[in-house]
Amino acid sequence: MPSYRFATRAQAKATAPVALPEGTINLSGGFAFPQCLPNVAAAAAVAAEEYRTEAMQYSGAVGLNDLRDAIVNYVAKDGVTCTRDNVIVVNGAKHGLDLVARVFLEPGDAVIVTGPTYMTALSILRTHEARFLSIPQDEEGLDAVVLEEKLEQLQRDGAPMPKLLFDVPDFHNPSGITMSARRRRALVDLAKRYGFVIIEDDPYRRIRFDGEAVAPIKSFDDAGVVIAVGTAAKVLAPGLRIGWIIADPEIVRQLAAQKADGGTSAFTQRIFVELLRTGEVAHHIDLITNALREHCDAMIKAFAKYMPDVKVRRPQGGYYLWAELPEGVDSDMLAGLGASHGVLVYSGTKCFAADLKRNFLRLCYSFVTPEQNAEGIRRLSEAYAEMQGGLNPAAQQRASHAASSMATY
Amino acid sequence: MPSYRFATRAQAKATAPVALPEGTINLSGGFAFPQCLPNVAAAAAVAAEEYRTEAMQYSGAVGLNDLRDAIVNYVAKDGVTCTRDNVIVVNGAKHGLDLVARVFLEPGDAVIVTGPTYMTALSILRTHEARFLSIPQDEEGLDAVVLEEKLEQLQRDGAPMPKLLFDVPDFHNPSGITMSARRRRALVDLAKRYGFVIIEDDPYRRIRFDGEAVAPIKSFDDAGVVIAVGTAAKVLAPGLRIGWIIADPEIVRQLAAQKADGGTSAFTQRIFVELLRTGEVAHHIDLITNALREHCDAMIKAFAKYMPDVKVRRPQGGYYLWAELPEGVDSDMLAGLGASHGVLVYSGTKCFAADLKRNFLRLCYSFVTPEQNAEGIRRLSEAYAEMQGGLNPAAQQRASHAASSMATY
Repeated sequence: MPSYRFATRAQAKATAPVALPEGTINLSGGFAFPQCLPNVAAAAAVAAEEYRTEAMQYSGAVGLNDLRDAIVNYVAKDGVTCTRDNVIVVNGAKHGLDLVARVFLEPGDAVIVTGPTYMTALSILRTHEARFLSIPQDEEGLDAVVLEEKLEQLQRDGAPMPKLLFDVPDFHNPSGITMSARRRRALVDLAKRYGFVIIEDDPYRRIRFDGEAVAPIKSFDDAGVVIAVGTAAKVLAPGLRIGWIIADPEIVRQLAAQKADGGTSAFTQRIFVELLRTGEVAHHIDLITNALREHCDAMIKAFAKYMPDVKVRRPQGGYYLWAELPEGVDSDMLAGLGASHGVLVYSGTKCFAADLKRNFLRLCYSFVTPEQNAEGIRRLSEAYAEMQGGLNPAAQQRASHAASSMATY
Repeated sequence: MPSYRFATRAQAKATAPVALPEGTINLSGGFAFPQCLPNVAAAAAVAAEEYRTEAMQYSGAVGLNDLRDAIVNYVAKDGVTCTRDNVIVVNGAKHGLDLVARVFLEPGDAVIVTGPTYMTALSILRTHEARFLSIPQDEEGLDAVVLEEKLEQLQRDGAPMPKLLFDVPDFHNPSGITMSARRRRALVDLAKRYGFVIIEDDPYRRIRFDGEAVAPIKSFDDAGVVIAVGTAAKVLAPGLRIGWIIADPEIVRQLAAQKADGGTSAFTQRIFVELLRTGEVAHHIDLITNALREHCDAMIKAFAKYMPDVKVRRPQGGYYLWAELPEGVDSDMLAGLGASHGVLVYSGTKCFAADLKRNFLRLCYSFVTPEQNAEGIRRLSEAYAEMQGGLNPAAQQRASHAASSMATY
């Protein structure tokens, strides 16, 4: 075998995934709940037959006009005012983030992220060789005061200023926190003042269990400094691979020019237009919200029952719980050991770009039933008890191997 | 509006596309023939209903195992021996090329290309800030003797050696040439000797009008130095956005790790598996081949009738004609002026990374009927006659504006 001359960015990763033993409960990635998946056959028949010459052809880099118009209407309900020229269709939110990174980042450019943040955002941004400025969160979300101090300091020092800020303002991934309106306004002000662009990643917004919605950061944007990223994955189904970006037309043109993939499938775009038009998407949002509310409650109850010394904050919606283990409990070890007890969770260490905290877990309650969520936490508590009893080296090795081989969604 | 701090790679491009006047005949991009597009409703119903929990979920970075196995069988018919571990599903061949570039290229790394080559390959590779080593073709394809001399020279000079070679060996885009078997072998030998990897882009292989197939470069690869890229776009339909890469498992793992898009749609993957299984793909290859043979013949006849001083070589298959204009005729001007006469073609200047030749056109006969192909060439001949009469400045400006605003497929 030759030794390939891979690029620097390619040399770190790429371990083969480990097959999960039968019966493992998966509380790791943000998968869709299988029992809530839509039947798209009727919409697909419309796309395949009535729209065949459109659906089976290349769609162009920005996406179908009908879908772009439908997205304008979809986000208008959240208070975002835009036109078709602000919209580009992408293959899901991750693809959108990757395109934004391509347009803005040179190797070594800095991106502001929350600590913790979405682990896959970090890994995507790392393939662009980004540096990170990690800012803590409080109950209102990203701490804008800390951020402002850091930015002032960088400016005083004549240091390179960050180009992008990445955040998930609604039901934050992983922390579950929803950012307050005044923080959203403050971020827009900072972006204008310090010349960075905000990526508002908002996959979970419509999955609200209770409480009042806060207007999107994009709705406070009077200067074209916010790039809003949305997706059909979390409100309907990941399988269509439909996402979108709302941004200034100048940014949209740059994103389109960086697309290298022949455009998003016109077929799945047309299916999504159909499902929006018939009300199927709205219907699914209700279904998913009601299901995940129960999933979340079941997981929280199970923590109270099986691991009462673990702190969890109930989110008002979304897919995730962020669990704080007692000081000194190693989350990498617990996540790895959990796998050998038949439950997959992510160690929170994956979610920090800096100032690593080693006693958090990210748990996703979306994929399995309330009963399985509860059983998953019970299994995790077994691993937790085993850890407290002290581990032999073989168990430690097994644990860390398992923790390193999980794909992230 | 703020002035965005785009990355270097983003600053060159991004003009808004110009809407085509009604009735324009499009001989530019490699679109599918609308009258040969498949009806995928039945396969979609199977995917949506029988395979719902798979089709509507995330598919993982490498793609569905059933599709990977089906692709192993598909390429076996061409003499390529591989297993599932050699296969990764991508969103079309362009996405595949982009991923390969991500895995191998640092800014400034050199890629060997033919002169001429596929224009969109150049633009994708340019977003990775590649340099190019442009090698001419003769009747047998890429001139391996010239390449060997250049590589020897680089090595003698202690210069950085190219990391990749990109070529389209069957019905080359744009030249239509099919590479001989001995050249394919020679390229594999050079790749082994000089440590580069060959990207064999092969979208058109099954669209053969006549003559004998030559085994793929991949079939001569005994050392893991060939990355074969395939796609459903040209043999079935672009709208599903299904492509694949066959490569060494080590490369496949790296490609998977660089994917940032949540994987290819499991729904369209399953549809393609179904269409392969039922024989629909094989049926469509026959349909498309028979249709495009007529398209190609009609275009060649029209050249003989309307522009007899233009040289065209009949390809044995594929989507394109490469037309050589008399010395001194400016192809940019002719392509631009053609648009104002109601026909879109690409100037060949887009296809050269170096040693630009200014008197070639790339014509795609796939998208329109034989009659429209002939009419398109008639319109082009009007533009040609107008050019020979001398152009006023307004017409020149209109012509170059039109030529610069075309998307490429």
